[in-house]
Amino acid sequence: MESLETSAYREVMMSDPPPATTPFLDAQRDFVFDQIWSRPGLSRRNRRWVTLTCVGAADSLQPIDDHVWAALSSGDITVDEMLEFVLHFAVYNGWPKASHLEGVVRRAWAKMEIAAGRKGTITPPANSTLGLDDWDERIARGTQEFVDVNLINAPEPETPYIHAGILNFVFGHVWQRPGLSRRDRRFITVASVAVCDSETPLNAHTGSALESGDITKAEMDEVVLQLAAYSGFAKAQALHAVAEAAWSRINN
Amino acid sequence: MESLETSAYREVMMSDPPPATTPFLDAQRDFVFDQIWSRPGLSRRNRRWVTLTCVGAADSLQPIDDHVWAALSSGDITVDEMLEFVLHFAVYNGWPKASHLEGVVRRAWAKMEIAAGRKGTITPPANSTLGLDDWDERIARGTQEFVDVNLINAPEPETPYIHAGILNFVFGHVWQRPGLSRRDRRFITVASVAVCDSETPLNAHTGSALESGDITKAEMDEVVLQLAAYSGFAKAQALHAVAEAAWSRINN
Amino acid sequence: MESLETSAYREVMMSDPPPATTPFLDAQRDFVFDQIWSRPGLSRRNRRWVTLTCVGAADSLQPIDDHVWAALSSGDITVDEMLEFVLHFAVYNGWPKASHLEGVVRRAWAKMEIAAGRKGTITPPANSTLGLDDWDERIARGTQEFVDVNLINAPEPETPYIHAGILNFVFGHVWQRPGLSRRDRRFITVASVAVCDSETPLNAHTGSALESGDITKAEMDEVVLQLAAYSGFAKAQALHAVAEAAWSRINN
Repeated sequence: MESLETSAYREVMMSDPPPATTPFLDAQRDFVFDQIWSRPGLSRRNRRWVTLTCVGAADSLQPIDDHVWAALSSGDITVDEMLEFVLHFAVYNGWPKASHLEGVVRRAWAKMEIAAGRKGTITPPANSTLGLDDWDERIARGTQEFVDVNLINAPEPETPYIHAGILNFVFGHVWQRPGLSRRDRRFITVASVAVCDSETPLNAHTGSALESGDITKAEMDEVVLQLAAYSGFAKAQALHAVAEAAWSRINN
Repeated sequence: MESLETSAYREVMMSDPPPATTPFLDAQRDFVFDQIWSRPGLSRRNRRWVTLTCVGAADSLQPIDDHVWAALSSGDITVDEMLEFVLHFAVYNGWPKASHLEGVVRRAWAKMEIAAGRKGTITPPANSTLGLDDWDERIARGTQEFVDVNLINAPEPETPYIHAGILNFVFGHVWQRPGLSRRDRRFITVASVAVCDSETPLNAHTGSALESGDITKAEMDEVVLQLAAYSGFAKAQALHAVAEAAWSRINN
Repeated sequence: MESLETSAYREVMMSDPPPATTPFLDAQRDFVFDQIWSRPGLSRRNRRWVTLTCVGAADSLQPIDDHVWAALSSGDITVDEMLEFVLHFAVYNGWPKASHLEGVVRRAWAKMEIAAGRKGTITPPANSTLGLDDWDERIARGTQEFVDVNLINAPEPETPYIHAGILNFVFGHVWQRPGLSRRDRRFITVASVAVCDSETPLNAHTGSALESGDITKAEMDEVVLQLAAYSGFAKAQALHAVAEAAWSRINN
């Protein structure tokens, strides 16, 4: 008969836990798997978005391999969703970390497909499915998406960062892509800005995730805890403070 | 008569140095300003790209304010170049850190313009100056730019990250924008991937910067030292090792 | 009567814990304070080095303020040691993060001194106490210190990074300064390279800390757990793996 902890580890990681021979491994089993992953209040899929963001941002080679593999092989996240995640992650954590993640996803997927006797081809999305390409139309549409996601007015497209970056690419394209829901993108974004901890984006995305109702306060509380495990209590404390302040503001 | 150190600090930071009352401030004056910024072998403008990338990636509030202000007020970097830098930085370090930088740049610029009795308006670039907007054309052009920058074949546009991200946006647009030279973008990119330290992008961009001749080996050596000061010797050690390995490979 | 958790929090943080109204605060109290800080096997002072490094590297504003204040007001770390820590931290995590830390230390110290009716002046160390300044002598001495700390041969001073950086400044000066012991510097360095997670410095410093006997294996196990709390389980897992591998190598 296996312990609760062993079973929690196995359900999440899709592999046997290492023997808990050190204080770290012991805490990983008891705290991370038994006390965090096993909690109700946030689905395992959403805990995976937070975790994948944290380990991807931390450049931690083995945890990235393990969590990508576990997310795919559990069926919690499909390969197409995972590849869409990589693009969204790239926006918030930068290209280099995303580039590494993308390689891990492709290798994990190829390996799983070969093991299943399949070819594992990835079908490129047709350009025609990806929305507007005219610059003026994209800026206009991106401005509206910015408002819908952030619940504040969009900035004027005065600078390259706002114009070519935020309005054309991030909100004019990425947030509107069909591969992930806006709610999925909220979890990935909140975790990303919490790991990054620049003050303004952290306030903006945490506040709008709650204010829009896309993430409930109880779910946000779980995001904070999941992030504490994978990015540390210092970063989690900042997210916690921002979420509490946003929640008070929304309810007053 | 002022000491060499005071003068080095003042030339870079455009302000008086704090009195060196602690081990940190003492080392900052002697090591960072007298022994690093004062070195020949890399222009002050290029040391600024490296430094701005490091402080932006580190989310360090006061150093970001100080270095943005110093870069602008010294005239080493114009405001348009700085705003172009923010977009390039966003690609490699993620949107949230860039968003903070952009705010700092805009506030510093407004303050300088007001002090000079000017209005400091920022002129948004016309969409028509920004290159292709048709998806298929951008992917084709981005594929060529990828080759020109990376000196290897471009990946197939199979995934959202490669297709919408790398080929359409990063190489189909950002690297081709006229506001900064490719050489400028090399310094920003090498510093970014060194701070991020994902292995593949670090190898790829350091190697291609040297192989293309856009950055000489002697300049790269100075980049490593500048990065050691602003992102720490641990990250610099990785860049150093990668640059040495790339240089041997190129010369064999 | 106060609970164990409340008491653990108060002893470490020198203030009352916030009421545990969310999953995060609950876990902070139970896991971080009751289950980690309360463990034997690593002194509270050494847990502070690890924690200060983690929160400093994470740029987490409130945790930095709280932990600096707690370390100073507990008497676990004197202000001179803390200022020496800032310099050592600067070397491994870069100047910008250290610059923020230094400001926090100075403000916390000034506030404590004012509250005690004292002036809180910080006495700069006399240059004459700080070792060699002739370049050739420093390179020679730095080469020896490199060997003593890293337990491997020093690299040739061929590049600016090795010459001006590693041999002249890092090992020719910082590691030899009298304000902290080599053992203190080991804890700060191991935590720094674990947060940074560049592979080569992580392997080198973790291995030499164990091989020199400056940090025992049981203490290193505690460092890993402390780091898991403050920089997340992903980074801790990498340190754990490196420490285990180094320990096997040393014992074979």
